[in-house]
Amino acid sequence: MQGTVLYGAGDVRFENLPEPSIQAPTDAIISLPVTCICGSDLWPYRGIASFPSPTPMGHEYCGVVEEVGSGVRSLKKGQFVIGSFFASDNTCPHCHHGYHTSCQHKTPVIGAQSPRLRVPLADGTLVATRETPGADHVASMLALSDVMGTGWFAAEAANVKPGATAVVVGDGAVGLLGVLSAKQMGAERIIAMSRHEPRQKLAREFGATDIVTERGDEGVERITQLTKGVGADSVLECVGTQESMMQAIKATRPGGYVGYVGVPHGVSLDGQQLFFSHVHLHGGPAPVRRYLPQLIDLVFAGKINPGKVFDLVLPLDDVAEGYRAMDERRAIKTLLRP
Amino acid sequence: MQGTVLYGAGDVRFENLPEPSIQAPTDAIISLPVTCICGSDLWPYRGIASFPSPTPMGHEYCGVVEEVGSGVRSLKKGQFVIGSFFASDNTCPHCHHGYHTSCQHKTPVIGAQSPRLRVPLADGTLVATRETPGADHVASMLALSDVMGTGWFAAEAANVKPGATAVVVGDGAVGLLGVLSAKQMGAERIIAMSRHEPRQKLAREFGATDIVTERGDEGVERITQLTKGVGADSVLECVGTQESMMQAIKATRPGGYVGYVGVPHGVSLDGQQLFFSHVHLHGGPAPVRRYLPQLIDLVFAGKINPGKVFDLVLPLDDVAEGYRAMDERRAIKTLLRP
Repeated sequence: MQGTVLYGAGDVRFENLPEPSIQAPTDAIISLPVTCICGSDLWPYRGIASFPSPTPMGHEYCGVVEEVGSGVRSLKKGQFVIGSFFASDNTCPHCHHGYHTSCQHKTPVIGAQSPRLRVPLADGTLVATRETPGADHVASMLALSDVMGTGWFAAEAANVKPGATAVVVGDGAVGLLGVLSAKQMGAERIIAMSRHEPRQKLAREFGATDIVTERGDEGVERITQLTKGVGADSVLECVGTQESMMQAIKATRPGGYVGYVGVPHGVSLDGQQLFFSHVHLHGGPAPVRRYLPQLIDLVFAGKINPGKVFDLVLPLDDVAEGYRAMDERRAIKTLLRP
Repeated sequence: MQGTVLYGAGDVRFENLPEPSIQAPTDAIISLPVTCICGSDLWPYRGIASFPSPTPMGHEYCGVVEEVGSGVRSLKKGQFVIGSFFASDNTCPHCHHGYHTSCQHKTPVIGAQSPRLRVPLADGTLVATRETPGADHVASMLALSDVMGTGWFAAEAANVKPGATAVVVGDGAVGLLGVLSAKQMGAERIIAMSRHEPRQKLAREFGATDIVTERGDEGVERITQLTKGVGADSVLECVGTQESMMQAIKATRPGGYVGYVGVPHGVSLDGQQLFFSHVHLHGGPAPVRRYLPQLIDLVFAGKINPGKVFDLVLPLDDVAEGYRAMDERRAIKTLLRP
């Protein structure tokens, strides 16, 4: 088959790759009706994160089971399934506590920007939907695999409760779906920090009540004004830079919560500053697997439509243009059709 | 009157000070039957934390109301009261959320290593007991003012729940009372990290089920063994150094909680390491005021006896020896009698 491989900064190629095959009895092979590019793919694409070259790309996926290993018990050929970017056994103590992305047997899933994919630990990793989603739902199901689950975790880590004032730092797909999640969790006021008109529009559609265009200390000042000097109850940090992290911490009221899901790049937190901020801090790689059953139900019920973050659709073989469009912020998120 | 003043590292003097007097209508003057030295007083005493010299010392207090300002509504002369190291109005949004040490009008209370003390914002800061505590309870009431309330906050920030495995990093008075707090909150297993025999003994008396003498990565390794490779649900960080903080974070299972109350000195947290640790982090100056009513009841009911941390009693005018004894770890905590 042909799939997506990153060779170096800005160098994405669509080229011949070995056909995925069962390598362990717990593997499954799935075919992907759609796939996509993640904001986090831009870190290596931009040369900010190092990686072994060449690297097959893509870690968001949903699709149809084609083949299962001899040890797979809960899945069968033809089922529609969704998984997360880390395979997990769903049985170890960490999974039991809901932290599947810290599973004692976790292993990354890579190569999803392709027509077919091998998923390790299939029983623990994949969640089957009750029926094959129609064309109106498939993009939303794909979004559950990472960005929606990550936005949901950000909102949960930020302890969003009914009536809360929530702030979302970052207007990428995760930030926008953080807005959607905060809305679902009952936030009364949702302040999206964004300076990009199309993203502001989608943020409002997802439930944002206010838009703040300032950043850094000016952004914090604006949040302080909007909250009458108190600060926000819940802040979702969906970027991962020093500036965005400090913006999140400073925008939170004492006793409030910062949920951070942007993979930190060059972030260092001063212990004493954090101490006197009095915030709760929680985050990490989102344990998407924990949320999949609930989020799948919300999509089928028409209560959430996270697929709206895909504002560019390309044939899979045009994947390089998909990266460029996201890198240049011409697109929020690119859907690819094999 | 005569009181305690710090002039420089190791230079504690007991000398003439102005008699405390009402300076604002919201002030109260209280007389102190007992007072004490805090572990945090050792930071400036050791020259590690800077301070304006000379500085009146002492911020833990309980005692009898002698005089109140014209604006004080809820207190009257003769009542026995306990307060916290930060005065707070108990009415602002931060106090309303239970974060009195981030009160919008907070002001430090200093000079409590003296026979009498001025307490600002008396209505918001002081909690009156239903009766004057007897000799058997007065040391425990004094402990509520800081170390007990701080240990309690550490356990609460570390989300100690019935059945939990809790680890306490630090065997000072706060750490030991963190053990007591974790026990009260129902922890099934409480691992105290201590290498000092008298402190180990008190930790066991307060509820510790295991003692770990190793520190740093060796200490983490030991906790990992004791928890069958999982890590602790709740870790109370009661020191405030880089080593103790990393020890706490690494000893916590993914999804577990670190409650940190040791004022960080030179602590810096790497964002990516924290991210992948998957821990919850919360701490800061303990909002002792929030807990006082509940803790006072527990002392009167005989359910907690935090006064046991005082293992050295001296006349107030011998305060310099009290500092030396704690600095040299000959004493856990010094009680002073004016």
